[in-house]
Amino acid sequence: MSEAGKQILTTLESGGRLVVELADMAVPVPTGTQVVVQVEAAPINPSDLGLLFGPADIANAEFSPGRIVAQMPEPAVRAMAARHDMAMPVGNEGAGLVVAAGEDPAAQALLGKRVTCFPGGMYATHALADARMCLVLPEGVTSEQGASAFVNPLTALSFTETMRHYGHKALVHTAAASNLGQMLVKICQADGIPLVNVVRNEAQVAILKGIGAEHVVDSSKDSFLADLAEAIEATGAMMAFDAIGGGKLVSQILGVMEQVSNKGAAYSRYGSNAEKRAFIYGALDLSPTVLTRNFGFVWDISGWLLTPWMGKLGGETVEKMRQRVLAELTTTFASHYKARVTLEQALTKEAALAYNAKATGEKYLIVPNG
Amino acid sequence: MSEAGKQILTTLESGGRLVVELADMAVPVPTGTQVVVQVEAAPINPSDLGLLFGPADIANAEFSPGRIVAQMPEPAVRAMAARHDMAMPVGNEGAGLVVAAGEDPAAQALLGKRVTCFPGGMYATHALADARMCLVLPEGVTSEQGASAFVNPLTALSFTETMRHYGHKALVHTAAASNLGQMLVKICQADGIPLVNVVRNEAQVAILKGIGAEHVVDSSKDSFLADLAEAIEATGAMMAFDAIGGGKLVSQILGVMEQVSNKGAAYSRYGSNAEKRAFIYGALDLSPTVLTRNFGFVWDISGWLLTPWMGKLGGETVEKMRQRVLAELTTTFASHYKARVTLEQALTKEAALAYNAKATGEKYLIVPNG
Repeated sequence: MSEAGKQILTTLESGGRLVVELADMAVPVPTGTQVVVQVEAAPINPSDLGLLFGPADIANAEFSPGRIVAQMPEPAVRAMAARHDMAMPVGNEGAGLVVAAGEDPAAQALLGKRVTCFPGGMYATHALADARMCLVLPEGVTSEQGASAFVNPLTALSFTETMRHYGHKALVHTAAASNLGQMLVKICQADGIPLVNVVRNEAQVAILKGIGAEHVVDSSKDSFLADLAEAIEATGAMMAFDAIGGGKLVSQILGVMEQVSNKGAAYSRYGSNAEKRAFIYGALDLSPTVLTRNFGFVWDISGWLLTPWMGKLGGETVEKMRQRVLAELTTTFASHYKARVTLEQALTKEAALAYNAKATGEKYLIVPNG
Repeated sequence: MSEAGKQILTTLESGGRLVVELADMAVPVPTGTQVVVQVEAAPINPSDLGLLFGPADIANAEFSPGRIVAQMPEPAVRAMAARHDMAMPVGNEGAGLVVAAGEDPAAQALLGKRVTCFPGGMYATHALADARMCLVLPEGVTSEQGASAFVNPLTALSFTETMRHYGHKALVHTAAASNLGQMLVKICQADGIPLVNVVRNEAQVAILKGIGAEHVVDSSKDSFLADLAEAIEATGAMMAFDAIGGGKLVSQILGVMEQVSNKGAAYSRYGSNAEKRAFIYGALDLSPTVLTRNFGFVWDISGWLLTPWMGKLGGETVEKMRQRVLAELTTTFASHYKARVTLEQALTKEAALAYNAKATGEKYLIVPNG
């Protein structure tokens, strides 16, 4: 097959220039268990933006049709030396039609089927995926409905499995009105897991109350710390998942957990022995994490990343999660998009600034053949 | 026994006044396995200062004979509500003569013996201890030599056991020229554990080089990060113990570990999968910990506290550690003191400001009956 396609490539030049452009590609020829997916829908997740733009100065970039040229800050240029001058495909996940397949029966079985997959390089007209990693979309489920079946659903489900791994029974979640956060609310409702949702404004409180969340705490209110203490006391949550990363929020959450743990206990100069854990899984705020350490000496703060954690949780648990996602794709794991853009539209100033803001309710969907 | 003794008590009044004073005490009457130790030497460790003074303003305190009155900052007053208006004895560990014993044979066996123990309340003429937790000092070992047999030695040994617990093979240690740091150098030499020592000036480099430390890195030098990278590459250390807590040092260490892990590896937008761990076990710098998070998503930062960790390591390991301490008290685990003070002298402005600075080589020893 020498059919022509298009893909978005991102290149960080060693001199510090970031070039993101729509380039021609030869549609790949699948072998073995590989299939070629004609991409119909691919979401722009924060985890994609790290590779697509990173901390580059998009606001002041040069935009021309199908091309963005931006300046990357010097420390980031150094930190990303391993990607210098490499044109990298982008787009973790998405859904589409299988238009070609390798000789393996597993691949052949998918020909003509609509699948969702997580192969990388989905911001393209065509992408190569492994048939064994594709999920066939149920009858009547569109590519748009099936496009976000991996990153957010498996992350939300893995949070509750990570909780069980450590023997905890309740969770705190920040940036909780996100698509991911809404999925977590529904999972916790179904599974009877007490959940404290931390959001940043009244509108986000309304979104979560609207889907039945019980504990929603607004960090913009003066009563934030008191509200958080009340919710943590009510739920017993001593484990938090944080999407924000920068600033004081993680420290505040651990501080309130410690305060709740000490309630009614005898004074210990070293703080309570309650195990308090926070996982930072995102970086909506790229500024430093600031820890005041007013939470004793029994605490853990860890980075959290989906792939290594799926490895820890094991194949059986992951397969169960995948089947649950497929069964609840249009309910628990439904995603909402603010706008649909073609590959070329995704590289316009208007779109790039909008989705790069990572604002709640402003998620974009790329429809490469739309 | 209604003999009279003296003890140092620290009281945080709910109004925010901290009163530290030398008070009369009735020498306790031991029962069961208890013994009364006539205290001959008790070190002032950073872990004692947290209770004795905490973040109170000692520089501007009122000093009168046997009494210090200082102001505690408002956030600390609130955080320590559980100790308000309680007169608390101080002094974790020390050594002395057993002058009275309960009826239990374990206690009776210690009568007249010189022991080292860890019962709390050692800044006193007499302290009550459990015979089963006392170690009899070997013939020829003085109370001064035996006074610091628990906190620093067991902490240093527990660092290497914590390392083994996680399957790591090398360590980074900060504030490495401390008494504890010197013990760790000797333990690691004996056990063949590669150790990266991070210190803050040339004099501290000289102290550690003087006892044969191989990797000593000075954080005050312009070449600090490059020197640290070289030492971490040479040792493979991906676990750090940090006594300082505040500032950027922990973040810098994790950042360098990440940089070393990525050397020669393919670019991953999420960073390396190398497990990088830092434990914060002290608070020499009370300012916030600042994490730039330029170290991927596979990292853990945890509080570390001796007592819960000894619980995790288990009784057999702890007993082995105790016996090793006793056998190497005047070699591996030798402590050095800048000054010896009586209970009353410990509460003078000169002494209090000096030991509260927690400077390397400036440790004080209280000799209550000296």
